[in-house]
Amino acid sequence: MTVIIQATPDELAAVRFDEHGLVPAIAQDEHGQVLMLAWMNADTLRATLDDGRMTYWSRSRQEVWRKGDTSGDWQEVLAASYDCDADALLFRVRQHGGGACHTGAYSCFTHPFGASASGPG
Amino acid sequence: MTVIIQATPDELAAVRFDEHGLVPAIAQDEHGQVLMLAWMNADTLRATLDDGRMTYWSRSRQEVWRKGDTSGDWQEVLAASYDCDADALLFRVRQHGGGACHTGAYSCFTHPFGASASGPG
Repeated sequence: MTVIIQATPDELAAVRFDEHGLVPAIAQDEHGQVLMLAWMNADTLRATLDDGRMTYWSRSRQEVWRKGDTSGDWQEVLAASYDCDADALLFRVRQHGGGACHTGAYSCFTHPFGASASGPG
Repeated sequence: MTVIIQATPDELAAVRFDEHGLVPAIAQDEHGQVLMLAWMNADTLRATLDDGRMTYWSRSRQEVWRKGDTSGDWQEVLAASYDCDADALLFRVRQHGGGACHTGAYSCFTHPFGASASGPG
């Protein structure tokens, strides 16, 4: 069953977009793992809430990016919130398909700092 | 015991900063809760890794923001990673003091969309 989030006009009007009309959106799965950070504009935020499916704005392609349309790796929205300054968004999602990342990984955050460090110095 | 992350020059050079020299940084606690999203520049990223303590760049004050210096609510770094495009950072932290948010809340993400919606329509 798709979660449709009935955002109020006040909630939508509260969100502060940057000079490009974008706001960063964190997608975190139901177990707490952070999958990715991407960007939304006002239209794709509304589409995400209305459709219950993560829809970003692709900065590299400069187009609406309804995640999974090409890859099949779509993200079902479970919950959505904004932060104290209303300039960052956090979504709980259920990841469908292979994973969130275009590399095929489940999460985009696969590069630890210090991974290849061997001891001090 | 403070975790000092021995980031390699290659890892640090991989990070892609935006036109303002900034990259978004997600702070998540050891239980998976997302606490905040803020910004780092190259210097505060390096300070964060070197000191084992979250240090951001305050966009509103345009200054280094070593979190907790004023509030006492500092963040101990447990792990750090960057994403597939190297344009977003994810930190596991232990939150000290009252909470991550300047409002006193533990997390900055306290505003759910649809909070005041009552049924469909």
